[in-house]
Amino acid sequence: MKKTIAAAALLLCIQPIFAQRPPSISSPEVNTDNSVTFRYYSRTAQKVTLRGEFLSGPVALNKDTSGIWSVTIPQVKPDIYPYSFMVDSVEMADPNNTNIFANERFKRSIVDIPGDQPMLHALQNVPHGKISYRLYTSKTLGTTRQALVYTPPGYNPQSATKYPVLYLVHGGSDTEETWTKVGRANLIADNLIAQGKAKPMIIVMPYGNVRPKPMPDFTKDVVNDLLPFIESNYNVLPGSTNRAIAGFSVGGGQTLNIGLTNTDKFAYVFSYAPYTATEEFQRNFSNWSPDAAKLNQQLKLFTISVGTEDFLYNSVKENIAMFEKKNIKLKTHIVPGGHTWMNCRLFLGNSLQEAFK
Amino acid sequence: MKKTIAAAALLLCIQPIFAQRPPSISSPEVNTDNSVTFRYYSRTAQKVTLRGEFLSGPVALNKDTSGIWSVTIPQVKPDIYPYSFMVDSVEMADPNNTNIFANERFKRSIVDIPGDQPMLHALQNVPHGKISYRLYTSKTLGTTRQALVYTPPGYNPQSATKYPVLYLVHGGSDTEETWTKVGRANLIADNLIAQGKAKPMIIVMPYGNVRPKPMPDFTKDVVNDLLPFIESNYNVLPGSTNRAIAGFSVGGGQTLNIGLTNTDKFAYVFSYAPYTATEEFQRNFSNWSPDAAKLNQQLKLFTISVGTEDFLYNSVKENIAMFEKKNIKLKTHIVPGGHTWMNCRLFLGNSLQEAFK
Repeated sequence: MKKTIAAAALLLCIQPIFAQRPPSISSPEVNTDNSVTFRYYSRTAQKVTLRGEFLSGPVALNKDTSGIWSVTIPQVKPDIYPYSFMVDSVEMADPNNTNIFANERFKRSIVDIPGDQPMLHALQNVPHGKISYRLYTSKTLGTTRQALVYTPPGYNPQSATKYPVLYLVHGGSDTEETWTKVGRANLIADNLIAQGKAKPMIIVMPYGNVRPKPMPDFTKDVVNDLLPFIESNYNVLPGSTNRAIAGFSVGGGQTLNIGLTNTDKFAYVFSYAPYTATEEFQRNFSNWSPDAAKLNQQLKLFTISVGTEDFLYNSVKENIAMFEKKNIKLKTHIVPGGHTWMNCRLFLGNSLQEAFK
Repeated sequence: MKKTIAAAALLLCIQPIFAQRPPSISSPEVNTDNSVTFRYYSRTAQKVTLRGEFLSGPVALNKDTSGIWSVTIPQVKPDIYPYSFMVDSVEMADPNNTNIFANERFKRSIVDIPGDQPMLHALQNVPHGKISYRLYTSKTLGTTRQALVYTPPGYNPQSATKYPVLYLVHGGSDTEETWTKVGRANLIADNLIAQGKAKPMIIVMPYGNVRPKPMPDFTKDVVNDLLPFIESNYNVLPGSTNRAIAGFSVGGGQTLNIGLTNTDKFAYVFSYAPYTATEEFQRNFSNWSPDAAKLNQQLKLFTISVGTEDFLYNSVKENIAMFEKKNIKLKTHIVPGGHTWMNCRLFLGNSLQEAFK
């Protein structure tokens, strides 16, 4: 009790130029019936609303006499969802939630509703792989870049055991951390490997945003800089049949660009809700006349996944029709839902079970 | 150009429930004369102010006719600083800055003013170590916890080369990522190792916040769970003379608690601006009658560092006097500045050069 007061006093007096600390409130609070209570403190705000991917539209919070705004959303389907508060005119992450959506543009928080049965992305009592933050030199971009590398449980760089590699690209304004922090790629892999449903593999998560340079340079960065860095620093199985590439949204478009123009390097191409209204995609595929027989032989598996409520659904259907018209073999995963990371986790779970088989 | 418009269109239409995207503006912009321009977009805000650890007080931003608020701060001393915006009554991180201060309570951004000469924390063209995110089982706390582990350049788990280990604890509401994301501990180590000024070492960054359980459990977690996990998973040199512990603020207090009650395990104790108004510190040190001769023999180096403008300065001076009165040998680093991560980086740089010598 004394400690709590002392800690509160510390928070009040630390760095006094950042004054006006709100009281310590709990938000979000996930209740046992899968309802979730969201809270926000402000004595001066006129209106506070909640926006979340578990809602069909904004919901108002109500203020009590102490300045704490709150709302309880009943029966939320267990999953991990992004949400934000709109405080008067300002959209913001929940200041009382440490779990932040890793993104360069959106400022959102994440709420994890675990449910009764452990979900595929849940931390379970299984052997855990390791995520490493690696710096590599990109000659293409003339800079040092960061990539995250998941190595599976038991990975030992000096043993004779070698692994296939999945390159996994985030969405348009996401970062190299979004696939682990929001997508839980490491835990999904841990769980599927423990269940014997996925082959132990290395997962490489690059930073896909290339600014101010145009996107095509990312293809070169992956193929000419990142791939050699991985191959010379990790125990990897050689050859295209041991390499997969996957990505979401803008990263799903990058996946098509990188994968289908480098089928000698990637035998597995998994594109999730691809955004393809880019110059690079136009250049690569508008007048494309592939040797379909050769491509189909090189590609062990090519999938496109999308939700039927995704705002890109029609565009993705056109992509699928285009590839089919060129006689490219592909498998589709059409599921309910929108352009969301809830679907990303689902798509990744599928790909991990389909790759390298 | 087309691509930029397409990307902007994408951002506008992605996940339409998160509407009202602001225009893409650049903030912060670090200019060549070390001035920094901060920008914020709002057509409706009444007042926007900047708070930053390079300022002595809040500074107002001015709005132009397009709704972009801005201010340019001249001649900021090169370093990495936290800052935030106060938009009407709401303190928030800069929505256009991807560089977020890793903290569970404060929502701040970070601005990096590199200066002409590369600073100790700058990304330089030297061999880079690796940061790994590791999950370990804490029997003490009955849960799985995450710790970050820095391994130095050339670290090879199967070679005969073994390394000393520094345990490095964050401040009160920070996270296990704060020492790398704000403190740049990995780059400081890379640079000092490359210069031959620090011994290659492993740096373990635990999550120091133990809630709802009281702090003393963190001591047990470090000594009984984390330390054995590290020793069985990494190439570590054995014995107390190859182990150091350091920490800042609440973590500086934890460092004193953990280190000085376990001098058989840690021969180096580095405490930065320790916060010691805790029950645990009272219990350990209020009626402390140590065998000073034995302790001084076990401790290869015990340092306390603090800035003269730190709000804990007087408290830390009392700590120092208390230890000196008990005849405990200690070295102090008293420097200008406050309770800041600018000083944390400085203190860590000192410790890395002092440890394991």
